[in-house]
Amino acid sequence: MKTRDKIIQASIELFNEQGERNVTTNHIAAHLAISPGNLYYHFRNKEDIILSIYEEYARSLLLDTLPQVSAEAKPLDSLILYMDSVFQTTMKFRFFYSNLPVLLDKNPILREKYVEVQQSISERVSQLLILLRGADFIEFADDELADIVSILRLINTFWVSFHQTQTIVNEVNDSVFYQGVLKILVILRPYTKVHAISELNQARDVYKKRYQEEEEIVEV
Amino acid sequence: MKTRDKIIQASIELFNEQGERNVTTNHIAAHLAISPGNLYYHFRNKEDIILSIYEEYARSLLLDTLPQVSAEAKPLDSLILYMDSVFQTTMKFRFFYSNLPVLLDKNPILREKYVEVQQSISERVSQLLILLRGADFIEFADDELADIVSILRLINTFWVSFHQTQTIVNEVNDSVFYQGVLKILVILRPYTKVHAISELNQARDVYKKRYQEEEEIVEV
Repeated sequence: MKTRDKIIQASIELFNEQGERNVTTNHIAAHLAISPGNLYYHFRNKEDIILSIYEEYARSLLLDTLPQVSAEAKPLDSLILYMDSVFQTTMKFRFFYSNLPVLLDKNPILREKYVEVQQSISERVSQLLILLRGADFIEFADDELADIVSILRLINTFWVSFHQTQTIVNEVNDSVFYQGVLKILVILRPYTKVHAISELNQARDVYKKRYQEEEEIVEV
Repeated sequence: MKTRDKIIQASIELFNEQGERNVTTNHIAAHLAISPGNLYYHFRNKEDIILSIYEEYARSLLLDTLPQVSAEAKPLDSLILYMDSVFQTTMKFRFFYSNLPVLLDKNPILREKYVEVQQSISERVSQLLILLRGADFIEFADDELADIVSILRLINTFWVSFHQTQTIVNEVNDSVFYQGVLKILVILRPYTKVHAISELNQARDVYKKRYQEEEEIVEV
């Protein structure tokens, strides 16, 4: 692995574990046993590292994970898989989301790139909901679409942060993102047509099982 | 106003305007034209100020704003007024919520107090939803309650942060919390009984009007 990539990977790890605010470029260099000068050869400062993490990793992960829209894929599966991948990204870069308005305020270039990605994700979620409606799975009026998308995106963005702030012990494991997907299904449920509820319940049961299995692993 | 209270008020203002992370105790002292020693007489450090802001202001605001449950008050109005006051609190202390997981990780006493308040708010929101169901306004199954409460609380907590991260220009005015209340009504809508939709629409129109008026004030 190249030094630049090593710095990025170590930063993600340290930021998630210790909080971005508590980690300096010197900590990162010491962790990798490289000189601060070597780090500064690759990145101007910590903001530059965070921008690169978003630009090269989180952003591409969010944009490359195209929802699988095909004749074979069920529209509900496409939406769920997309939401699953978005939640995985927020887990992987949770230091970023737990601090989001602050980090964006500090770095206008980061804000610009983030907002651009948000708009693109919102469009995709809209398309997936319209597809689900076209497949007679859910029902909503055209003027409800923007609000539903906005609520799904709010849950995408802040579910992990919300979960971290509801208990005395702040533990994050995969059960958290399974719960996030379950919350998405809770939002869809009241819009789901009667004949499609059993399909929604099946998807819910899959994620409930994953969630419970993960919880058991953690308890053991 | 006592010096202690002046420090608290100036801190809230500076934290909201400049970001808590960018404001030191020295900035706060300079802003008030008092010596750092005078500030340290009242507070040990910045974490101590933040803890006091939450403990003496935000916490009491959230707990004292009891939902108006009376024979005269309509259950929908009780819920909306409660949500309105919770959103107002998140606006007033937005530096706190835009940084929430980070601030709670830094201060275990703050986390303990915060989690306690969250549980109390969740219980009240549950009660208000059960009241709305009892009044034949909404319909949900018992096993849906916890999820609906959790989603309403997530919107309460992170709507302002979400709004701040969706546009290039991060502007916060009262229109933001009116939009938050509107999102709560979007969540309630699909659970609302057919005969009650017109009452829900009336409430929505009130907040839409407030939101639009606020937007016009800002544009002028």
